Parts: sequence; C-alpha cells; structure tokens
Amino acid sequence: MTVHKYSDIKLLVKTESFDSIVLQRGERMSSDKDFIKQITKRSDDFSRWYTDVIKRAELADYTTMKGMMVIRPYGYEIWEHIQSNLDKMFKDTGHKNAYFPLFIPESFLKKEAEHVEGFAPEVAWVSFGGDEELEERLAVRPTSEAIICSMYSKWIKSWRDLPVLINQWANVVRWEKVTRPFLRTTEFLWQEGHTVHESAEDAQSETLRMLNIYKTFAEDYLAIPVISGMKSEAEKFAGAESTYAIEALMPDGKALQAGTSHNLGQNFSKAFNIRFETRDQNLEFGWQTSWGVSTRLIGALIMVHGDDSGLVIPPRVAPLQAVIVPISRGNWKETVLPEAQKLFSSLKEAGIRVYLDDRDTYTPGWKFSEWEMRGVPVRIEIGPKDIEKGQVVLVNRINREKSFVEIGNLMIELNNLLEKIQKDLFEKALKYRKDNTVTNKTLNDLAQTIEEKRGFVRSGWCGSPDCEAKVKEKTAATIRVIDNKKESGINKCLVCGKDSTDTVIFAKSY
Amino acid sequence: MTVHKYSDIKLLVKTESFDSIVLQRGERMSSDKDFIKQITKRSDDFSRWYTDVIKRAELADYTTMKGMMVIRPYGYEIWEHIQSNLDKMFKDTGHKNAYFPLFIPESFLKKEAEHVEGFAPEVAWVSFGGDEELEERLAVRPTSEAIICSMYSKWIKSWRDLPVLINQWANVVRWEKVTRPFLRTTEFLWQEGHTVHESAEDAQSETLRMLNIYKTFAEDYLAIPVISGMKSEAEKFAGAESTYAIEALMPDGKALQAGTSHNLGQNFSKAFNIRFETRDQNLEFGWQTSWGVSTRLIGALIMVHGDDSGLVIPPRVAPLQAVIVPISRGNWKETVLPEAQKLFSSLKEAGIRVYLDDRDTYTPGWKFSEWEMRGVPVRIEIGPKDIEKGQVVLVNRINREKSFVEIGNLMIELNNLLEKIQKDLFEKALKYRKDNTVTNKTLNDLAQTIEEKRGFVRSGWCGSPDCEAKVKEKTAATIRVIDNKKESGINKCLVCGKDSTDTVIFAKSY
Repeated sequence: MTVHKYSDIKLLVKTESFDSIVLQRGERMSSDKDFIKQITKRSDDFSRWYTDVIKRAELADYTTMKGMMVIRPYGYEIWEHIQSNLDKMFKDTGHKNAYFPLFIPESFLKKEAEHVEGFAPEVAWVSFGGDEELEERLAVRPTSEAIICSMYSKWIKSWRDLPVLINQWANVVRWEKVTRPFLRTTEFLWQEGHTVHESAEDAQSETLRMLNIYKTFAEDYLAIPVISGMKSEAEKFAGAESTYAIEALMPDGKALQAGTSHNLGQNFSKAFNIRFETRDQNLEFGWQTSWGVSTRLIGALIMVHGDDSGLVIPPRVAPLQAVIVPISRGNWKETVLPEAQKLFSSLKEAGIRVYLDDRDTYTPGWKFSEWEMRGVPVRIEIGPKDIEKGQVVLVNRINREKSFVEIGNLMIELNNLLEKIQKDLFEKALKYRKDNTVTNKTLNDLAQTIEEKRGFVRSGWCGSPDCEAKVKEKTAATIRVIDNKKESGINKCLVCGKDSTDTVIFAKSY
Repeated sequence: MTVHKYSDIKLLVKTESFDSIVLQRGERMSSDKDFIKQITKRSDDFSRWYTDVIKRAELADYTTMKGMMVIRPYGYEIWEHIQSNLDKMFKDTGHKNAYFPLFIPESFLKKEAEHVEGFAPEVAWVSFGGDEELEERLAVRPTSEAIICSMYSKWIKSWRDLPVLINQWANVVRWEKVTRPFLRTTEFLWQEGHTVHESAEDAQSETLRMLNIYKTFAEDYLAIPVISGMKSEAEKFAGAESTYAIEALMPDGKALQAGTSHNLGQNFSKAFNIRFETRDQNLEFGWQTSWGVSTRLIGALIMVHGDDSGLVIPPRVAPLQAVIVPISRGNWKETVLPEAQKLFSSLKEAGIRVYLDDRDTYTPGWKFSEWEMRGVPVRIEIGPKDIEKGQVVLVNRINREKSFVEIGNLMIELNNLLEKIQKDLFEKALKYRKDNTVTNKTLNDLAQTIEEKRGFVRSGWCGSPDCEAKVKEKTAATIRVIDNKKESGINKCLVCGKDSTDTVIFAKSY
C-alpha cells in the first residue's frame, strides 16, 4: 500500500481505480467510487459537469414537470444570502418591499403592446378556479409590470406621492422551451423593483443606480466580474424605453446576462394611466423603471468558480464558510472531538457559518472530498498532533494550500483567509475575462473568435439593426452591451464598415 | 377659538365638525375631515373598521381580481418581521428552508384520497403554457404536501437521511368564495414545514414542538394569547392523522385559527412511497408532519390590538417602533429639527426602528393622528421648551400616557416603554379572553352564549361527530380545540349527556 502525500489526495480521490488510500496522517480512507463517478470532469464536459455538480451537491433537483426544479436547502441557503445582502442594499437606497398578486388578468397584460407581444408566448394561463371556468383568463405572472402599474394608477395622485420605490421578492413563471437548472427554468425566484418618478432624469438615475448596485453585488459578494451597459433595441425588455444589463463571462466563453435594469419611460404609465399632479400643477404621466435579478445568479456562481472537484462558493454567500473535520484516530471522540466542539462553538458565536462534521460513519478523507465538492471555502482540520501543538490546519478550497495556525489566532487567520479567498476568486475570474476579451474589426474575425474560443469581442458598430442581425445570423453572437465609452481605434462598423457610433461587446450567450 | 387640552386632541380629531383646533402647545392644526371619515369607529362596526383601517393605514389594497390583494409596504414590513423571527425559531430547531415548485401535476394531487377531496374544489388550474395545451393540468399549489412528498420519495432511502426538516416560505392559492384581506384571500403568503421522521413518536414530538413554537411566537411577538390543542376529526387537515392548532379570540367574540401543525402519520408516505431502511434493516414508510402559519397572522394582530384611532402594532413586529414628531413652531427648522435629527440618528444606530416626521406640509396634530392610526407604539415629541429642559415627551400609543424623559435617559426609557407596551398588549388581550371564556353544560346555554356575546365556550363532549354536528347546526359554533386536560366539573357531553371524554372549546370562527 502506497503512502501518498497529503497534497495528492485530491488527485487520488478523482481516480476510480483505487480501493483504499492512506493519508499522510495515517488515516485509512475507504474508497467511494460512486462519489466521484457522479461528477463529470469540468474539463471534459462543462455542461454535464454543471448539472452533475448541482445534483451531487444537492443544490437543486428536477421534478417530473419540464423545467420546474426544486431548490434544495443547500442551494436555497445561497439564495438566502443573496437575498439578505441585496435586500439591505435596496433598503439602504430607500426601497421598500411589497407583495403583488401572482395572477394578472389577460386584459391587463395586453395594455402595453410590446410587453404582451414579448411575454404572451411564455405565459402559463389559469382558466379554472375549482370547477368554475373563469370569465377572463389569468396569467401567472411572467413579470409584474402590468399588475403593479394597475395599482400605481390608483395610488399615485401627486408629486408628493413620488418617488415610489417598491421591490418585491417573488416567483415568476415563463414557459421556456429549453431549460437548465438555475439558468433558465419555467419557474424561478427573483426580485423585481418597480419605481415611479417625477421626471425622466430621476428615472434614468434610478435605472443606473440599480444597475450599479447589481454590479457591486455581483463583484463584491458573488466575486463575479461583470461588464455593464445598455442593450441594443433588439435585446431590450419588452415595453422598456431602454434596458441596461450586467453580463458575466462563463468559463465556456459564453456570456450570461446576470441582471437587468430598465428605464420604462412613460410607456407603462401611459398604458395604465399613472398620472400625477406636478409641482406646477399640471398633470403628467409618471416616469418608471423596473429591475431584477434572479436565482440565475446561483447558476453564474456555480459556473464561474467551480472546478473538477465541484463547487467553490465565495465566502460572503456560502451556506458554510468553514467546516471542521476532526481527524478520527484512536480514541478521537475523547481527545479530538471535545476540542473540535470548542472550536465550533467559538467560531459559531463569532458569526462564522461553520459546520462540525463529527460523523463516525465516514473517514476524514471522504469528508474532505465531500466538503470540497460542496464548495466550502475553508476546511479546518484538527487531529491529536495538532492538539499537542496547540494548532489547527486551515485548507484553502481554491488551491488546497494549508496553513498551520495557532488556536489563539484562529479567528483572525480564518477571517483573513476567507477574505483572501473572496478576493482571489474575483481576481481569478477577472483574469479569465481579460484573457478572453479581444477586439475584432471585421465580421470574419469575430466569426473566427466565436468559433475557436468564444469570449467577449469588442467591435465597432454603426447602430443599425441590420448589421446586428447579420452578426447574429453568421455567428449566433449578440450584442451583450453597448460600451459607455467609444474605444479609440475602433471606429468602423464590423459589418458595413460605416462609421461606428458605439463600441459594443459581442458574445454568444446563455 | 377654544384652547383644548392636549389629552382632548384625539377626541377632537375624531369629530368631523371642526375646522381647526388649537393644541395646548399652541400649534394650529388644520382639519382633515377625510382623514377620519375613512375609518369607521371600531365600536360601531367592527368589520368595517377592520377593512377601513387596512385601507387607510396602507397595509393592503384590493385588486380587480376577487380575493386577490396587494400587501403594501407598511403591511409587508410586518410580515418581514414575522418572517425573520419565525425563521430564526425554525432554524434554531434544526430546520432548513428550500423551495418547491408552484405547480403540482393533477395526478400527484390525487394520490392521497382525503387530500385531493379536501383541496380540489379550491384549486386554480393551469391548462395552457403559452399557446400549447398541457397534457396534464397543473394545480397552482393550495399546499405543497403532494409535490414535496414526490421529491422526498426520491431523496429518502435510509434512516441516516432522517429526520428531514424542511420549511418553505411561499405563496399559495385557494379559490375562496368569501374573502377578507389577510384573513381569507385567494392567494396568501405563508410558510409550510414538511418533515419526515423515523418513528411515530418523533413525528408526534415534531408536531407538538412546532405547535409550541407557534404559540410562543403568537404570544411573545404578536402579543396575542392563544389556546392550543388538537382538532376534532371534522376540523382536521385533509390527509392528516391529527391536526393541532393555535386559536385566538378576536374582539368580536369569534375565534381565529392562527396556525396549524399536522401529524400526517404514514398517510402521505404510503401514497407517495416514501420508504427508508430502518436501523434494523427493514423497510418502513416515513412518519411525517406539516405545519404552517400565514399572512392571516397580520389580520389577527390588527383585530386584537386595534382601537377607534386605528392600528396598534406590538413593538416586536412593528415596522416603526417610534416616530419622532418635532413641534413645528417659529424657526423650528433651525432650533428643533437639528435636535430631532440627532435623536433620530442615535435611536436608529441603537437599532430602534424609528422615523423622523419632518414634513412641513403637515401640522404636529395631524401627524399625531396619522401615526396613531398607523399603530406606531411610541411617539416622541420634541419642542422648543423640551430642548430648553433637555427632555423629550414619550407618548404611549395604547393609552396616550405621556412621560417626560431626560434626553440622556431616552434609550433606556424608550426600551422600557416598548417592553411595557408589548407586555400590556398581551395582558389586555389575555384579560379580554378570560372575560369572554365561559363554561356551558348544555347546548341551550351554549346557544345563548353564542347568540348574546360569543367568546370561547368550554364544554364536555362525548367525542361523537353527531353531537359536534348538532352544535354546529344549531349555533354555527365549532370545536376549536380539544383541551389537553379534562376540566373537573365538566363530565357530560353538552348534547347527548353521555360521559364526556374530552373538554372542548367551542366558538364561532373566522
């Protein structure tokens, strides 16, 4: 039996040909072939890796209904951290939560022409309540502009009632043809902000304020670098004046739209008659915005940070920030376990989300793999020798680097390590994005980039929908955002060669 | 122009015949006839008072869809406090949140016979997704046992997987004939816990543990005293082995079921094939529970604590625990306002949910009425004279008692007052319940009680559904709960006169 170095364990765990391995610390680990079999290697098949890891880490599960998934506790807890942090950012900027009905009368949905055209094909319709056929079908909300605007027209009378800054956390349903867990599901959870303002300027400021909050949240909490900017007409929200988005680059070179903020102008206020008396006593339609992010963010997080061993969850939104694995040797329940329990209590008390894995039905090695697969940022090992030395071992999930830490310094060192991991994940993703962003000046170049390696492609664009459509037809790439500053050196449309009005970022997208 | 005493203001505000009143402090208050007109006196018409106050305090609003309401920010914030506190109690007892689909295939709903019989008449059915007619209708969940059990049967294999302790916060839809805001709406928000256990005993313990959490929460947070106990067969949940409930007495003498906890036994696990390998390697069906409370709790809170001036919200769940009203006299913006702002900042920093009403478009008197109507437990007044004396005035929402408090002692005194209000609200409600609970030994006596003043009626009952049905037929009262201890002196069934097996509590109910 070979004695492997500690640092080799992950490698070993990933082969399927061993029966048992011996840890450097002398722990015997029974094999768990099934454990690894269930996760396709990320480098082999990114798409299967994605669904495997979701299933294996118990983030979500499929139901018998197409595109309807269950978010399991471990996945839902990530959502809870996303929710609580975003909610705080919304409230700090003056927004309040409310709750509007799940259903929208068909006639309401039809009031804004572009809106109904965009959403009607995706709507789930309720036509029976009990045994009674409804006079008017009810849409299960695909988004709530219509029902919310119908209420705003009752509530808003005067400039004194403005701004209205309301958000709701809710489920929505869109009948999707192709679905993937978290990324595109028939039902999903999201938040949708719906605001009304006195002026076009105020609405525009709000649109950008929320876009910026999304960018900050994605980068600071999810450790996902995003580009932000306006969408082209072809890609904007059905009924909006303009749509802004944050876009993240996934490791397969495809872009993921991770949040949108819409300036609705007066489109909905005119359709729903949301009028107010202005400060100078005229009647005016309100200027509106809406903005949302969804459980799709969890999909982004899985893809951006994961590796062949499974998930890597950024500490700020991780259900567990650290897991304590006692090294179960000899009479460990009398010697090691009480120390581990002390550590657990003190970390928990200090507000660390920590779990003590004291199960005696699994070996430490199995537990290491399990918690790595689940993406816990830091593993804390404690064994008899550590206790003698008054230390514990911290293991960084990203690179499995170990550090030996005096128990007295644990809180400081652990916090430092968590912060470092949060930062490193972001930097790593940012480097990937930089490495996979190129500038292309012709459609042929862009087509080649997309075919060979995808990524973000910066190009000139004349602003014409025709040129945009040609790119899509030839490469399947779309304009993800219009960059807010024109890049020097990009001054011609990549399709028609006319003067470029904008620098845009193309990519294939989810 | 008459000068009224401060303590008379409320009275004046409630008459509709004045044009202006003068406060003792010399503030002129413009009339706001509409303000009061919109709230029916509670003593005149309790039911209208209830809907008036909901509308006027902007807790909720109606939509054009029958029974579908909007929970407005001020109402939703109460729900947020209910949620966060209950959620903590659930997590402290080992429960995790998850999210299951909104839709349930019709065939799933039919698996448990009693369950479908109970809920099918209330189900909203989705039969179209976009333009495509579905092969199988989907129920919009009226409760989630069916969809959750279908997943549990996949997840649970061994006793090691147990207990499963999952809760979800969700919206549900029940097609109700008669609806009232918060109390009975077509869609409502709730939480539903769904657990699976190794043994009947464990399931029963969980059922009672959660019942007890509901009781504690209702009493400690909502300041609503509740009785708890088992339901009779006639009143139990469709599909349960036994149902337990907490019941509160409303000021109109009717009972409100405020939370339920069901021991499902093996009914659902057999219907959905949730089987596990036991510790001694047999196969066994899991024992299950489910339990829930809903936005109905807000309805209970409104009714139990409100008065003729509007809402009274218990401090622990109040969106605002205190409101600061600066007395706007002379150059108050230079003198009073800065002091008020300082108070506001220090209270906010100390974690008090506080609002500074610095609007100059309203008089202090108007603001007093407004915030009393909205049920803010404590008003803090600060005027020029108070500043001279280094004091503020605290006004208790329950009885409008004032206390003059040195600014240095404000935090302590305010906290004391908030705690006192929390306690006094409970005591007041408890006294009301005691005063309105009687023992009746005959059906005639009970009928008279119900007709004359309602309330809780303690009686003997032989356990027969026939006797129970006779009471309902004659009085419309139902058994709210079976008391867990037999009361001495009640030893005959109030209908048939046979030996009483149980002491039960009858009431008319919402």
